[in-house]
Amino acid sequence: MNSTDITRRLACFVVRSEPEDIPDAVQHEACRAILNWLGCAIGGAGHDTVRFAAQALQPFFGPAQAQVLGRPERADILHAALLNGIASHVLDFDDTHLRAIHPSAPVLPALLALAEWRGLSGRDLVHAFVLGVEVEERVGLSVFPEHYDRGYHITGTAGVFGAAAAAGKLLGLDEQRMTWALGIAATQSAGLREMFGSMCKSLHPGKAAQNGLSAALMAERGFTSAAAAIEGKRGFAHVLSTRFDPAVITDGLGEGWELSRNMYKPFACGLVVHAAITGCLELREAHGLRGPEIAVIAARVNPLVPELTGKPEPRTGLESKFSIFHAMAIAILDGAAGEAQFSAEAANRPAAVALRRRVEITADPTIGKLESHVRIELTDGRVLERHVPHALGTLERPMSDRDLEAKFRGLCAERFAEDRIAAMIEACWSIRAAADAGALARLAAG
Amino acid sequence: MNSTDITRRLACFVVRSEPEDIPDAVQHEACRAILNWLGCAIGGAGHDTVRFAAQALQPFFGPAQAQVLGRPERADILHAALLNGIASHVLDFDDTHLRAIHPSAPVLPALLALAEWRGLSGRDLVHAFVLGVEVEERVGLSVFPEHYDRGYHITGTAGVFGAAAAAGKLLGLDEQRMTWALGIAATQSAGLREMFGSMCKSLHPGKAAQNGLSAALMAERGFTSAAAAIEGKRGFAHVLSTRFDPAVITDGLGEGWELSRNMYKPFACGLVVHAAITGCLELREAHGLRGPEIAVIAARVNPLVPELTGKPEPRTGLESKFSIFHAMAIAILDGAAGEAQFSAEAANRPAAVALRRRVEITADPTIGKLESHVRIELTDGRVLERHVPHALGTLERPMSDRDLEAKFRGLCAERFAEDRIAAMIEACWSIRAAADAGALARLAAG
Repeated sequence: MNSTDITRRLACFVVRSEPEDIPDAVQHEACRAILNWLGCAIGGAGHDTVRFAAQALQPFFGPAQAQVLGRPERADILHAALLNGIASHVLDFDDTHLRAIHPSAPVLPALLALAEWRGLSGRDLVHAFVLGVEVEERVGLSVFPEHYDRGYHITGTAGVFGAAAAAGKLLGLDEQRMTWALGIAATQSAGLREMFGSMCKSLHPGKAAQNGLSAALMAERGFTSAAAAIEGKRGFAHVLSTRFDPAVITDGLGEGWELSRNMYKPFACGLVVHAAITGCLELREAHGLRGPEIAVIAARVNPLVPELTGKPEPRTGLESKFSIFHAMAIAILDGAAGEAQFSAEAANRPAAVALRRRVEITADPTIGKLESHVRIELTDGRVLERHVPHALGTLERPMSDRDLEAKFRGLCAERFAEDRIAAMIEACWSIRAAADAGALARLAAG
Repeated sequence: MNSTDITRRLACFVVRSEPEDIPDAVQHEACRAILNWLGCAIGGAGHDTVRFAAQALQPFFGPAQAQVLGRPERADILHAALLNGIASHVLDFDDTHLRAIHPSAPVLPALLALAEWRGLSGRDLVHAFVLGVEVEERVGLSVFPEHYDRGYHITGTAGVFGAAAAAGKLLGLDEQRMTWALGIAATQSAGLREMFGSMCKSLHPGKAAQNGLSAALMAERGFTSAAAAIEGKRGFAHVLSTRFDPAVITDGLGEGWELSRNMYKPFACGLVVHAAITGCLELREAHGLRGPEIAVIAARVNPLVPELTGKPEPRTGLESKFSIFHAMAIAILDGAAGEAQFSAEAANRPAAVALRRRVEITADPTIGKLESHVRIELTDGRVLERHVPHALGTLERPMSDRDLEAKFRGLCAERFAEDRIAAMIEACWSIRAAADAGALARLAAG
């Protein structure tokens, strides 16, 4: 397979792209991703993972160039990118590409910090963001799934390319410098799946954002890298994966957009539980269910679902995210499944404990991973059933703009008053018209 | 192979080590390494690689906590560690462990910056340095050579563990926090050999120093990582290598010291040319050679030598480092082979061009890589011969303390007056007695 000049061709594509090349629907998807990402970052801002990192690094902050979202600190853009990257992934509530990467967490923290510092426009930020997602997805998918199976956390390892490309676009790098930026990113590509379950999992997109941003800034000054950073014999693809398909990077560039395949989580837990939650919420809404009238909640699901989320008696907020029993019960009780429903308080609430003991799960390999059959038996003998072929939040059944606003409100409610929340929502929808995109970040000062 | 608890056992070793555990000879070797490293950092401080990085990152510098060596800037310790790490490797003149890693460039920049900021003692710095080298070498050798053969630049990928362990020791981390520090380092382990020949090669030890230092600082605040960061199924060793020997990490900890196997380059070019240069310098000294009296300079060397350094007509300083023809000629002409002998000026000097055309190289697979036979034929018919079984600078024939001082003077002469150079040399030899190790860094303010 001839695979020369891949890095440079990718760089050229990014450099030559014009805002007009991006279809309006994709630009609107960017606004949706920005709203969803900002909510996740604000919702995660108070998490220990972010607090500890901010406390450790605060003595080294440079000038107050960019806002740490949802927090009082302002920092130099490199630290702001790091901390906002950590915060936006720490709740596991950020967006997910159909096949591989959490695309926004490594890219948007770099872009928003850079835009705030340099006073750049929302139009340019949206354009750079779409390109950054395109780059990280294509680089990631060119080695997927072997690279992920080997043990790399692809959101970090591919994300750094997206951050470098996006930041480089905002900086207006030429082709040579954009190629260097991708190379400086490539040689910092890192992140181990061993870290899942520890604070380092969210460090990965944070470092991807920070390292990608500094790669672009260094390349701007003339700092060089190897030319074939991705495709070379000892480059990213061959060293960090057992398989590489360069055509995935270069075929059809500009003809379609990976951001169109972006999904948003309506519920603050693992994707595989989302179809069962969707069924519970729909039956609750249709029949006015509240809990006490229920004898049994039964779900038929893919065998992967109980394997990943089979914890019967969760005690902590984190444990409750891995319990389909809790997730279905709390959805009936609260009519919601946001962060508040996956707290220690919710996990230990007597009504939730009682109802989750009435949940029965059947594994059925003929059912898809994001599908479920929910059957609720009432104490009066009635049986209610719902087949959910696609969970809310999948590409077949995306969250609406209003759904995303509701999610955003839920994530921000603890930190901000309603009028500030409304202003941030409005700023996300209208960011393409903003002369100074950084105004959005300053609205999110905690 | 049972390989559990490797990361934690390594962390415990570092935490429990006492300064008294380090033999005096090893402590003296640490002083030699510090002197050699400081000279390389100062000598490299004006290189474009360092200048471009400093220019790009200066807008983000935090408080003036630590000196950028040989330069006017002071920076926060994370940026100082990065820039000093880059500078100390950029001339390819820093130390080399017998088998694998350039040990000082990733570790000392982190330690000296931290010591300067916190006012820590030279005794503690030397102790932490010896431990950092032990950690990076053991981690690196546990996956060597497969990890390197796969395409990783082991000075970066293993160096980050050394920086984290050393910085963590200086911070006084407990066993849990030291384990986390090694884990935060593990998940940032990066650096591709594809980058050799570009500025990114020296970025690797720089980022290793910076990331290892921040790993220790974050762990200090409670930032967690996975427990089995090195040995876990998706940890460093299994993900970044095809082979892992955990016994290399844990066997005989504290019984011997990897720093004892440290080598220093007397000449500012690739190691494989050093034996041929040694022979030329010895024949020059013994016979008062100056160049014009020479008809032929012949060397028999391992076939690897012309393969790596066979450039017949170098034009630039960098090219001249990969020309055994130039190296032997200039050694005869100048009686030296330092940075000045591998400049564009030296490569294009008419006398050097004339003499290198009289150099004849014979490849001989029976000769070792660091060995050579040099034969010089004079215009008067005399033939002078020298067998160099071990190049100057190898473990069998180490540079003396005076040799290291002379090398240091050569590297600093452009930036500092003789009295300041003498003060720095003295400060390195006496660093174990320094109450404030950072005084050494401030002496090196450019």
